Amino acid sequence: MTEGNTPPDTVKELRRIVRYGPDGFQEEEDTVALEYALTIMVDGEEFATMVCSPTHLEELVVGFLASEGVILLPDEIVSIDFDEERGFARVQLKHKQKIAKEALSKRFIGSCCGKSRQFYFQNDMRTAKTVTSKTKLRAEQCITLMRLMQEASCDFQQTGGVHNAALCSTESLLVARTDIGRHNALDKIYGHCLQHRVPVRDKIVVFSGRISSEVLLKVAKIGAGIVLSKSAPTTLALDLAHDLGITAVGFIRNGSFNVYTHPERIVLQ
Amino acid sequence: MTEGNTPPDTVKELRRIVRYGPDGFQEEEDTVALEYALTIMVDGEEFATMVCSPTHLEELVVGFLASEGVILLPDEIVSIDFDEERGFARVQLKHKQKIAKEALSKRFIGSCCGKSRQFYFQNDMRTAKTVTSKTKLRAEQCITLMRLMQEASCDFQQTGGVHNAALCSTESLLVARTDIGRHNALDKIYGHCLQHRVPVRDKIVVFSGRISSEVLLKVAKIGAGIVLSKSAPTTLALDLAHDLGITAVGFIRNGSFNVYTHPERIVLQ
Repeated sequence: MTEGNTPPDTVKELRRIVRYGPDGFQEEEDTVALEYALTIMVDGEEFATMVCSPTHLEELVVGFLASEGVILLPDEIVSIDFDEERGFARVQLKHKQKIAKEALSKRFIGSCCGKSRQFYFQNDMRTAKTVTSKTKLRAEQCITLMRLMQEASCDFQQTGGVHNAALCSTESLLVARTDIGRHNALDKIYGHCLQHRVPVRDKIVVFSGRISSEVLLKVAKIGAGIVLSKSAPTTLALDLAHDLGITAVGFIRNGSFNVYTHPERIVLQ
Repeated sequence: MTEGNTPPDTVKELRRIVRYGPDGFQEEEDTVALEYALTIMVDGEEFATMVCSPTHLEELVVGFLASEGVILLPDEIVSIDFDEERGFARVQLKHKQKIAKEALSKRFIGSCCGKSRQFYFQNDMRTAKTVTSKTKLRAEQCITLMRLMQEASCDFQQTGGVHNAALCSTESLLVARTDIGRHNALDKIYGHCLQHRVPVRDKIVVFSGRISSEVLLKVAKIGAGIVLSKSAPTTLALDLAHDLGITAVGFIRNGSFNVYTHPERIVLQ
């Protein structure tokens, strides 16, 4: 039991369970994915509450605030103080927030032409940029990078309850992050890139979960040109990927995969 | 392509893709899960924007508003008008909303004793009630109900991108709903129960996805005493299940499963 929301720096813990199998019921211990509630306060005001895996929390806060358009660069943050027991991150910005929090999640209704019609939040208009990466990836590299990400994160196998994301070059895995929230895993990657000034145009995002519109927008905000997923995409994600110049690859399993958008970046040799 | 967000009453559509397999690349058609952005306006004010599968939208709106604590019963809603092309649901309430929208998502910090410590939103304190259901379920029924739900929804097999939820009696499946959003599938079930005044105390919620805290809270709000999942739970969900009197069963696969909380409701014979 986590008492009073104290976050251990891990993504799982042991619980007593009753297992039913061929021999009936028996008590066992099993590993369960930790879920931790974190409230982000910006300049003393409650900004958002998320549930997450309590690892790499500073990256998560930086990536989330950048993704929401509150900051562009990490040096706009003066300090982040964590009250880990109660689950609070108190952020102090260099300059007062210019955009009202309310406006960030307002529905955006674009014109009928051009890429704007696919956005549904005003904030995304400002933060998700069109990607012009010239990176190309060989088919076998798609399969290799997915394997590398899966090998790097054995937590899913143990708990069955977390998402994994990684930032890769065409040849190797650079950084991998895990979270019970699919967006959080990507925000941690984004926060890491911002904090360490990792160039992203030539990089690839590898992801264990479905490519939803929110996931696709995170990839656009990070600035990578290719997203590889083990799972399926949605129509809105593909419309966004098409418009934003991102190559979306899904269902990377058993040596095969589907390329949904901008297939020119995935080559045979 | 969905033009201008017109929602067809289906959860998927065909897209052209490039498939990579043993014979290299080839163009094919494949089924992709539809993702539709819906903004709910309450008495003329923007309340929330969600992405969903465009089916059973009225149930979704009713279930979502009840789950958020905006209404207790569907007859508090005078009308719901859908602007399906632009993705808006305009809700008119009988009485003006009493609780400020802002307050609904405010972080709740409870005392250190009692169940309140596990909640993280103020709203959940009001809407998630402790369940005192006396329903018991035999082990084999857990397995049967999961099979029935999976058979009822062939969409997952076709798109790999949707969640399925069902309301069941101990013997049979009563209503099944599908959505790309895990919470939406449960909100559709909740909306259905409210609109048709389905008694829920003796019912079981069967779910394809992970039991997160949000999923567990939806089950508590619906009022069912047992939740069955094919997938894993999180620690916070189990803490809530323990406190709210809900039996959480996970990993129902290949004739076995785990009972995480209140195992007294799951019996051998």
